[in-house]
Formats: sequence, structure tokens, C-alpha cells
Amino acid sequence: MNNFTFYSPTEFVFGKGTENQVGELACKHGATNVLLVYGCGSVVRSGLLGRVKDALGKAGIPFVELGGVQPNPVDSKVYEGISLARREGVDMVLAVGGGSVIDTAKAIAAGVPYDGDFWDFYIQKARVRKALKVAVVLTIPAAGSEGSGNSVITKVATLQKLSIRVPELLRPCFSIMNPELTYTLPPYQTAAGIVDMMAHIMERYFTNTADTEIADRLCEGTLKAIITEAPRVMADPEDYGARANLMWSGMIAHNGTCGVGNEEDWTSHHMEHEISAVYDVTHGAGLAVIFPAWLTWMASHHAGKVAQYAERVWDVPVSDDKKAMALEAVARLKAFFRSIGMPVTFAQLGIEQPDIDLLVKKLHEDKGEEVGFYAKLGRKETREIYELAL
Amino acid sequence: MNNFTFYSPTEFVFGKGTENQVGELACKHGATNVLLVYGCGSVVRSGLLGRVKDALGKAGIPFVELGGVQPNPVDSKVYEGISLARREGVDMVLAVGGGSVIDTAKAIAAGVPYDGDFWDFYIQKARVRKALKVAVVLTIPAAGSEGSGNSVITKVATLQKLSIRVPELLRPCFSIMNPELTYTLPPYQTAAGIVDMMAHIMERYFTNTADTEIADRLCEGTLKAIITEAPRVMADPEDYGARANLMWSGMIAHNGTCGVGNEEDWTSHHMEHEISAVYDVTHGAGLAVIFPAWLTWMASHHAGKVAQYAERVWDVPVSDDKKAMALEAVARLKAFFRSIGMPVTFAQLGIEQPDIDLLVKKLHEDKGEEVGFYAKLGRKETREIYELAL
Repeated sequence: MNNFTFYSPTEFVFGKGTENQVGELACKHGATNVLLVYGCGSVVRSGLLGRVKDALGKAGIPFVELGGVQPNPVDSKVYEGISLARREGVDMVLAVGGGSVIDTAKAIAAGVPYDGDFWDFYIQKARVRKALKVAVVLTIPAAGSEGSGNSVITKVATLQKLSIRVPELLRPCFSIMNPELTYTLPPYQTAAGIVDMMAHIMERYFTNTADTEIADRLCEGTLKAIITEAPRVMADPEDYGARANLMWSGMIAHNGTCGVGNEEDWTSHHMEHEISAVYDVTHGAGLAVIFPAWLTWMASHHAGKVAQYAERVWDVPVSDDKKAMALEAVARLKAFFRSIGMPVTFAQLGIEQPDIDLLVKKLHEDKGEEVGFYAKLGRKETREIYELAL
Repeated sequence: MNNFTFYSPTEFVFGKGTENQVGELACKHGATNVLLVYGCGSVVRSGLLGRVKDALGKAGIPFVELGGVQPNPVDSKVYEGISLARREGVDMVLAVGGGSVIDTAKAIAAGVPYDGDFWDFYIQKARVRKALKVAVVLTIPAAGSEGSGNSVITKVATLQKLSIRVPELLRPCFSIMNPELTYTLPPYQTAAGIVDMMAHIMERYFTNTADTEIADRLCEGTLKAIITEAPRVMADPEDYGARANLMWSGMIAHNGTCGVGNEEDWTSHHMEHEISAVYDVTHGAGLAVIFPAWLTWMASHHAGKVAQYAERVWDVPVSDDKKAMALEAVARLKAFFRSIGMPVTFAQLGIEQPDIDLLVKKLHEDKGEEVGFYAKLGRKETREIYELAL
């Protein structure tokens, strides 16, 4: 186990009707003027946005609005939000939505007190040293952004989809999580969220760090819970218990509880970000294609931890043939993804002839000639993985 | 899953050499004058206290000292600390030690700004509304107090051992956790700590709340990790990896990660507190006697969740006979406790003829005529459980 810092100061308020507490929570966390960030209409149609505004009004907190954040959120909306927040003098950015909305809110929160271009943070030209407060009313369990200090934004001009991780400053001060708010999610989006949270765990789990028993068990347990609850929620979108278990699992998957002390390996996420940036696919669906491909490659080249994963997560019988165990785990993972309606190949993702040259080129331009930690991968190896997803 | 709030704002700094960061962390968290609380000499002999003082000195933070906190910490030391802290105008109470030291520090932190007797909080005559900051350098993984808002103190005059839980105010602002500091713990204390952390998980796990899959899996996984690492650390007290896994498991066991959304049942802890208050035994050793007795009673009266525990934690084969599964789990739990040198009967605990009349009387005087949630227990039932521990 490596030395680490674990710092998850977010106040999570979880359960039925909790969105009505947003006004008092904003007050408690010191908001005096709020920028309300949301997406493309569903929070308006469902009446949630109205309830949030009412609660802020009752608490006497003024607010301005920035709607229209898209999936795979883009830089232009961040610039718009930074201008608005500066003009209005807001001190808290309140995201009402899923990962795209929250990540946009975080980018705005970091960008407002910074003199330069907020994109500097994402290309590692500058570090975030100050930020407005961020708070969340979550509607999509997937990205885990409600408990993390991470944000992923796409720069449209260069098709770069890049991330930052600033736990000290960009973790939400509070996150409201009402599973009922997820009842109306379309099945495809529910399923893509399930894949995303599983990937957040698995990219922490596959590590060469020694002595990771507690981290492993927390990862495996959370994966088991997701695998158990997913079919329930696909069968009945209004199953409160299943929605609640998935919603909390999505947070646990990404606030650092899983994987403490591990050297992590986010290669699958980075490989998927290139696909999303070029083809604008749903992030979780892209991961359902890439993660099994990455794991298949590992089965042949570095099967050790994959065999443990096979045994403990997928109940694959233990044998001396670790590669066979690992491949069986891949088969069960793919079958699971298919069972919840997710694609597991580029073609199923709607990309008949992916431009693998471009994906490999962009990946290594963004992330360097060598990517990965569980296994180090050059252009030859990442090409092989993209090809395994055909 | 019930509605819940999860709030664990402590900054955990974990790993080798981290105690040397205590000065900069105290500064970062706003300390200007520190009360240093510690126990009965081992932190002096090991040189740890000297290193902590050096680090505070280098950071320019003045401090006063309160040593001599005993296991099963008592009210007199709290009064002494409150007087000292008031006289010196401290704003942070820094505990260097295990649960007893941390719990004393928390009681002092709550007592200083309160006009009345700090014991009012423990008998629920008053609520903690303000507290000094608490911080920790942990030397004994067991109580989980480094991540919780809990404190347990014994009032000597009445032999009452009572607890408070004030997560909003009494969670440490930072906790330094270096597994190397636990190398010199005597085996008995290491083992008692292992029992204590397991009990913290199990008292959250046994619940009638429905739809607790993610909470269950996190509990089971943490228990599995502890069961795996315990024999390693008993065999080699300087096994860093095993010590590290146990130390982090002890925190996870009690900061709320396990059991979110559950109605919890702390009956075993309360029953043990009566034993500790009367016979001054080590808390974890008392739990090793009481918990299996409580679980044996449940096997006959409410076996459902115990059977799940048997299957998932102890690998007991699934059968229709849930009582038999539950009893097999008890047998394996007892065998495990014995394997690490813990007692599982009153006699092994050194109490040949426990005054069960007195224990039952005190328990119900302190906690009411009916105790427990997983099963509700009156005087007849708690007597049966104490007798099962003979």
C-alpha cells in the first residue's frame, strides 16, 4: 500500500425528498449568490428545477441561471458560465444534473477567480489554486462527480477531451442525492451510468501495488453490489431500493474510497475519451466497448490481478491457468454489459469503421508516448487494444 | 435503504513518516495553540511524542501537554484537560494515541466552550453545539475514533461508561495514520483492536432495513480484509502491508462508510461497556466474549441476516437451515477470535463469576427497558445473552 491522502469532505444528503433541503444546505455552506447550472430540459420538464428554485427562494438566496449544458460538455458553455458568474458576483456554483453539468460547474468554479484561460488547467499549463464553492443536486448516477474533485471538458476546436483532478478545491461542499430523481432516466443512460461507475472502480483496482487487500475488497464489494442491482433497475426503473443502491455505489466508486493507496491506471478512460471526442458517443457506452478490449489484452500479457478479479467478482472457478480465468472474466463482463443493453464492439456503438490511426495518434499526443501503469503501453499496444474492440 | 447523511470531512494522511507532517497540518487547519493529549508512556518511550513536539515547534505552534490518559478513559482526566485548555486558551486538541486518548480529546474539545458539566452530553442532558478542533496522530487501530464523531468516557463515581456521537463537530479535522507506529503494540492489544473494528462493522451490518446491498458488500468486504490480514500481523508484528491494511480497515469500519442507510444495532457494544465499566477489561476482549453470545442468541431467534453473513463472510455453504448456517458462523467467528489470542467466555476474560444481575440492571438503567433494533431485547433476553457468554 502506497502512502496516500484521503479527503472527502462533501456532505452527502441522501434519500427521498432531499432536494427540498437545497436552500438550507446552500445557506449552511455559506452561499450568498448562486449560479444554477443545468442541462437540456429534463430537469425543467420534471419540475425539479422549479423545486430547487423555490427552495433557494425560501432560503433568501438569489441566483442566476445557465442552462443547456450538453453531454460531453464543451468549453464554450464554461466560458459563458465564467462570464455570467463574474458579472453577477456569485460565490457558489450549484449543478442540477449529472456528470456533464457538474463537470461544467467545476470548470466554471475554477475559472472565475483565474486570470488566464480556464483551459490552462486541463492542459496542465496552470494549477487550480482557488475556486468558487461547488454544490450538487444529482440526477444521473454515473460519473461520480458528486463526490470527486474531477472534471472532464471537451475543447471543440481541437477535439480534446481532457480531465483535471483537484480534490482539495473542486469537491462539492454538499451533494443532494435522491434516487427518485433517477426514475425517469432512459434505460440506455441508466446502463451507460452503470458501466461508467464500474470502470471507475476497475481503473483503480488493476494495479501492481502490493498489499492492497482492503482496497481490493472495497472495489470487489462495490462491483458485486452494482452487478446485483443493475438487472433490478433495468427491469423496474422505479425500484427505489435498486436505484438507491446504484446511486450510492456510483459515488463510492469515485470519491476515493475504492483504491486508496493504489497506483491507478486510467488508460481505458483515456482511450474512451478519444472516442467520445471524435465520435461524440455516450461515455459509458464507449467504456463498455473499450474496457473489455483492454482487459482482453491484459489476459494475454499481465493476467495476475485479472484472475483475482475473475474469482472474486465473477465467481470464476480458480485454476492454474490465469489467462483462461481472465478470459472467462472478460466473457462474463461482456455478457453483463450486453444484458443491460450496452454495446461491446465499435460496430455496436454505431462506429462501423473507426479511424484507429486518429484515435492512437490523439491518445499519445494527449497522454504521452507511453500510457498506463498496470501495463505500460506504447502506440503498438494501444492500437492492438482498439483493434480488439472491432 | 433509509435516508441518511454521510459526512466524513477528516483529512486522512496515511503512510510511512506522515507524523512528521503534524506541524504543517495543524497550521493548515488553523491551530494557533494546541493541547497535546496522550497516554501512559509508550508514545514517550518510542520517541513519537518528541517527534510530534519537534514538528509543532518547527511550525511555530505553541502547545501544552496532558499525559496519563488510561485505557477505558475516565471523567477526571477530561475535567483536568478542560481546565488546562481554558487556562491556556487552546484552539485545537491534538490526540497522540489510540481510542482512549482520542475520546478524551473529544470530550475536552466539547467541554471547553460549554458552561455546564461535560458529562451532560453523555447522559443526554445537553447537546454539543460548539467544540474546539480535534486532530489525531493514531497509534492503535481499533476504536475508529480517528474517523468518527464518537467518544466513550467512563464516570468513575457511578461506573457509567457512556458514548456520544456528534459527527458534525467532533470528527477530527485531520488524522495522521502511520502503520509503522503500530509495530510495537503488544499482541493482545493488536488482537483486541481487530475484534473492536470487526464489531463496529457487525453492529451496523445486522439490521432489518431492506435494500442494503451496497452497505452489506462494503461491510462484508472490510470484514474479509480484516480476517485475511489478522493472522499475518499476529505472525509478524512488523509486516507493514498487513499493519497498513488493518489500520485503514479500522477507520473504514467506523467513519460511516459501512452501514449507510441502515438502522444500526449497538447492543453488543452497550453490553460490553457494562462489563468494562464494572471489571475494567479491555474493550475489544470484552466484545470477543459478548458478540458471539449475541450472535448465538440471534441464530435461534432471528437468523436471516446471520445466514447471509455466514455465507458471504465465513464461506459457510448455503442451506435451507438458516439456524445451522448462523451457528456455523458463530463457531467460525469464535475460532477466529481464539486464533488471535482473544477470549470468548467470561472465564477466559478472567471473570470467573460475573455479576450478571448487576450487568443487566446497569444496562437497562443506562439504555432503557428495551434495547436493540435487529431484535428488541428486554431484561430476560439480555440476561440470556450474558449467560451464553459464560
